Amino acid sequence: MNLIELKAPYLLFVGDAEDLLMAKTAKGVAHWRPERCLGQLRFPEAKADLGIADLDVEEAARQGAKTLIIGLAPIGNSLPASWIDTCIRALEAGMDVASGLHLRLTDVPDIVATAARTGQKVHDVRTPPANLPCGTGLPRQGKRLLTVGTDCCVGKMFTALAIHRAMEQQGVEASFRPTGQTGILIEGYGISVDAVVADFISGSVEVLAPAADNAGHWDIIEGQGSLLHPAYAGVSLGLLHGAQADVLVVCHEAGREQMDLMEGYAVPSLEETIDINLRMARRTNPNARLGGIALNTSRYDQQQALALIAEVQQRFSVPVVDPVRTGVASIVAEVLKDA
Amino acid sequence: MNLIELKAPYLLFVGDAEDLLMAKTAKGVAHWRPERCLGQLRFPEAKADLGIADLDVEEAARQGAKTLIIGLAPIGNSLPASWIDTCIRALEAGMDVASGLHLRLTDVPDIVATAARTGQKVHDVRTPPANLPCGTGLPRQGKRLLTVGTDCCVGKMFTALAIHRAMEQQGVEASFRPTGQTGILIEGYGISVDAVVADFISGSVEVLAPAADNAGHWDIIEGQGSLLHPAYAGVSLGLLHGAQADVLVVCHEAGREQMDLMEGYAVPSLEETIDINLRMARRTNPNARLGGIALNTSRYDQQQALALIAEVQQRFSVPVVDPVRTGVASIVAEVLKDA
Repeated sequence: MNLIELKAPYLLFVGDAEDLLMAKTAKGVAHWRPERCLGQLRFPEAKADLGIADLDVEEAARQGAKTLIIGLAPIGNSLPASWIDTCIRALEAGMDVASGLHLRLTDVPDIVATAARTGQKVHDVRTPPANLPCGTGLPRQGKRLLTVGTDCCVGKMFTALAIHRAMEQQGVEASFRPTGQTGILIEGYGISVDAVVADFISGSVEVLAPAADNAGHWDIIEGQGSLLHPAYAGVSLGLLHGAQADVLVVCHEAGREQMDLMEGYAVPSLEETIDINLRMARRTNPNARLGGIALNTSRYDQQQALALIAEVQQRFSVPVVDPVRTGVASIVAEVLKDA
Repeated sequence: MNLIELKAPYLLFVGDAEDLLMAKTAKGVAHWRPERCLGQLRFPEAKADLGIADLDVEEAARQGAKTLIIGLAPIGNSLPASWIDTCIRALEAGMDVASGLHLRLTDVPDIVATAARTGQKVHDVRTPPANLPCGTGLPRQGKRLLTVGTDCCVGKMFTALAIHRAMEQQGVEASFRPTGQTGILIEGYGISVDAVVADFISGSVEVLAPAADNAGHWDIIEGQGSLLHPAYAGVSLGLLHGAQADVLVVCHEAGREQMDLMEGYAVPSLEETIDINLRMARRTNPNARLGGIALNTSRYDQQQALALIAEVQQRFSVPVVDPVRTGVASIVAEVLKDA
């Protein structure tokens, strides 16, 4: 199976981004994997700044950069000529190029031709590997934790990365298993599960998070969507079944009432989300349990947020955190306590 | 949206099939849509016989055949040269060619070249249309019935076709909406939902079974897999959400204990299957209800089968049928009674 594997260190392409929200992919990579980031490439008009060295393609290559990562999305439906030029220069300087955009770099003939000529790789990380298998549902060695959610964009990737980091800091053998483009660019590895052909959703997760060599190893798998999402629940269910998770962590944005972009759909309750996820998870792992709840409390001030966290913790009797405000230590302690 | 639409009448390609099980696709088309089938094309060594006129490609074309349908699967992993020759002769005789095989006709250069030269179409019906949208979950006009199941291969397509036929015979305006290759070849229309990219499962069903012009129109949608299937549940859930079904009919093979090809997985109970399907269906159609149960009782003799049907009907208080033995009239009566 030809899984994506990006070579570090990276040069992060920030282009003409006006702020870090526009360059959120670059920001994510720089935040979670600073040791892999050699520098940033900013056009003169850029206002976003990752706070790392400014390098042009040639200087980055001289310093050993192995991959140029496209760290922002273009405005509009095409790749700017200046971005294509940058990719071509990177390939010519001996670097690979990686992108999580819907627009594929491998659809640009000049990029493809340059890659062929230079022998460098072009990674469109949303494109899944060929020849994925169907799921087997067979038990496999190792422990797995999956973040699930009440909706899209509630913090499933952030929570998984935070749990992975906390485990590593405690010396627990653990791998982050990304299922979306930003996570893949951060980890340099992964499968964009929502881009897989429907028959292979569960199978792709069995490939992404395979049997561990060590029974105590934890795979921390990034969830997608929500089992109660009217457009994307199929992805979420296939992911849940393929993950065979021992532990679920439910993610939710406190105060969000309507589902993101889904007219007429209320965000489901935490109760319903927990219940349906555990029920469905137990089809492929009868021991699946709730490890905690991660609230995104960014709509509230500190005092309100802490009160909310305490209230939810009281309601569900599991550790409740905001990964940004409180960290995830209490969830990790709960997850590891029986290990 | 460029949905498949096959032109009738058809010439059914039976090749060298030894029996009707090998030629089950051809048999399905001939059984359900005899009015569209002009004849069969059998090699001299074929033992299977659909009981319709034997025609060669040229004679079929003279009689007005518009599409050659590949009615069986090859043994092994490649298309026999004789099948490719037959496809090419059909294209040269002015017919389109349609196949539901995993091996795509459009991957055979000679077939592609002949189609280009003759202007005829090659339909690989497992290939979904390009540019499918994501689901919206928005309500749409018309009534919809979806067949769901405890497992794969329990009769979801057969049941849907039988209900569709019974409705038409009663003068009810209804359409069969196929979601798999055999159904698509039978109806000449449809989307192979398990071949769609995961993000678009629900959206593809919204396209396949769109808002009806008439509020009383019924779409009878073929289900796939099972919500409790460890490999394919994602397809089933996306299909369920996209269908926004008013009525579910649950299909089950009586006496099957282990899931098809899934080691260690028991077939879920009817109780659990009904409960989880209604619960998930109500996310996109709060009025979803159970319309009946279709049992495949082919493992039993007539007396045992009728006793089983009576027992299940007693247990669930909904119409229970075996579409083959008893027909589906009682389910159709139940479904239409409030209309």
